[in-house]
Amino acid sequence: MKASKEFFRKIIEKMIPMHQFLGVQLLEVEEGFVKIRIPYRPELIGDPRKNRIHGGIIAVGMDASGGAAGMTKLTSELDDISTIDMRIDYLRPGKDRDLIFIGKILRSSTRTIVTQMEAYNTGSDKMLAIGKAVFSLKRKQDECNEKA
Amino acid sequence: MKASKEFFRKIIEKMIPMHQFLGVQLLEVEEGFVKIRIPYRPELIGDPRKNRIHGGIIAVGMDASGGAAGMTKLTSELDDISTIDMRIDYLRPGKDRDLIFIGKILRSSTRTIVTQMEAYNTGSDKMLAIGKAVFSLKRKQDECNEKA
Amino acid sequence: MKASKEFFRKIIEKMIPMHQFLGVQLLEVEEGFVKIRIPYRPELIGDPRKNRIHGGIIAVGMDASGGAAGMTKLTSELDDISTIDMRIDYLRPGKDRDLIFIGKILRSSTRTIVTQMEAYNTGSDKMLAIGKAVFSLKRKQDECNEKA
Amino acid sequence: MKASKEFFRKIIEKMIPMHQFLGVQLLEVEEGFVKIRIPYRPELIGDPRKNRIHGGIIAVGMDASGGAAGMTKLTSELDDISTIDMRIDYLRPGKDRDLIFIGKILRSSTRTIVTQMEAYNTGSDKMLAIGKAVFSLKRKQDECNEKA
Repeated sequence: MKASKEFFRKIIEKMIPMHQFLGVQLLEVEEGFVKIRIPYRPELIGDPRKNRIHGGIIAVGMDASGGAAGMTKLTSELDDISTIDMRIDYLRPGKDRDLIFIGKILRSSTRTIVTQMEAYNTGSDKMLAIGKAVFSLKRKQDECNEKA
Repeated sequence: MKASKEFFRKIIEKMIPMHQFLGVQLLEVEEGFVKIRIPYRPELIGDPRKNRIHGGIIAVGMDASGGAAGMTKLTSELDDISTIDMRIDYLRPGKDRDLIFIGKILRSSTRTIVTQMEAYNTGSDKMLAIGKAVFSLKRKQDECNEKA
Repeated sequence: MKASKEFFRKIIEKMIPMHQFLGVQLLEVEEGFVKIRIPYRPELIGDPRKNRIHGGIIAVGMDASGGAAGMTKLTSELDDISTIDMRIDYLRPGKDRDLIFIGKILRSSTRTIVTQMEAYNTGSDKMLAIGKAVFSLKRKQDECNEKA
Repeated sequence: MKASKEFFRKIIEKMIPMHQFLGVQLLEVEEGFVKIRIPYRPELIGDPRKNRIHGGIIAVGMDASGGAAGMTKLTSELDDISTIDMRIDYLRPGKDRDLIFIGKILRSSTRTIVTQMEAYNTGSDKMLAIGKAVFSLKRKQDECNEKA
């Protein structure tokens, strides 16, 4: 990873408005690996009859953790990473507790990064959901190429 | 659709905490079809350098609109619908304006519903993202069956 | 698993015409887990410049191995299992050698089964592709339910 | 489309061993659009109790038609296109008749192409399956870029 952990934390927690809104916390980061938390609050519930977390919030954490894993490969803050596609399998209902997301790189090239993401409730090793995402990478230094 | 539009609106806009948090509005609903809006606010931004909407919020709207389309098939408020999986292709960046989501049923059986979802910025017919989701349906009247 | 391994092998290898056509072999089977082989033949190539296996054949093996894992949950040969959806991430090119597929159940209910599938070239632990599939299960004994 | 239709037909029908094996026919091609046929033969059946086409063959046709749509963007026969991921929703069983696949480009950049694919039985407008795929494009002229 090129950026320092502190700089990386600042990007993930502070510079992305959606993350700041939800209070996303960066727990761990290595090259190609991140662990983040979305703190529980009652607004995250999707089905109040059963206090189940909204599936969309799981998706936010998946996109955030996969994208953050991909960002560990960036070499400049002018580089750009954007989601090409994302798929999520929901395995069991999320409970009304903090959510933990792990993102890791499965494959990376100079142009695209494929990540796997996993969602958990804090303190449990039962996977709530598993996802895959493909990200497009635009390195500042490659822009010559984008004229085609 | 079994429920009245007003009752349906109440479920989508008021009874789902995540939707109320984001200010989701139900614009249209027919059996197997819904259109909803997520009003823009600066917290929805994912990349502040380009004012791009966070991909996770697109996913929230996709899950919400697909699920709402599926809910038009429910026959009792005791029925239960939950997301089995969801896939999203991101086609272009979402701009800092209101987001419109269309959910429609592609296939439905007594157990599962497949929906297609589309995301737009308000006032534009350029699709930001297209998705598919599969939902599991548990009808109250089927519970006899769940003992297996 | 309710069926004997020999009976299960007969279904996978002989009773499914597509599998017989490709020479699919059942290598291992436990409840919720199967390992199969698709023997290499030159007709499986997709890109003759690089002798890469056609992505579609990877998909055939994914559908076959996921479906076979799901079939270990069937209780009668009148039961029916069909693919609702399937997603595949291609991680590296398949080489011109036998293909091994592992299918395992991630989640199962009385109605749907979610499986993960992995593809390898024989003799290598480098994953060629990883997939997920959702299957619909119709148990003969549930048919009363299907009138809705 | 840069290549002539006859040259394109030769690539799709003759130069890809898997396609020749299955007898794939190119029915139509425009820039960003192809229609192909996989002729029925009994070996394509997945469930002989109901004469349903194997889901894997639908996947072969999806990969082939999406990839062929992407190939209409290539500018040299040295260019390389490979599947990053593919997702398929199976909407209804395929019958024991010829299969028609339509592939069209949803989005293309210099690096990646997103396609939608549809499957039908010949002579019917009822969609059997709908898919999406993302392809990676390596243009010969871009190779300077791959050193990063």
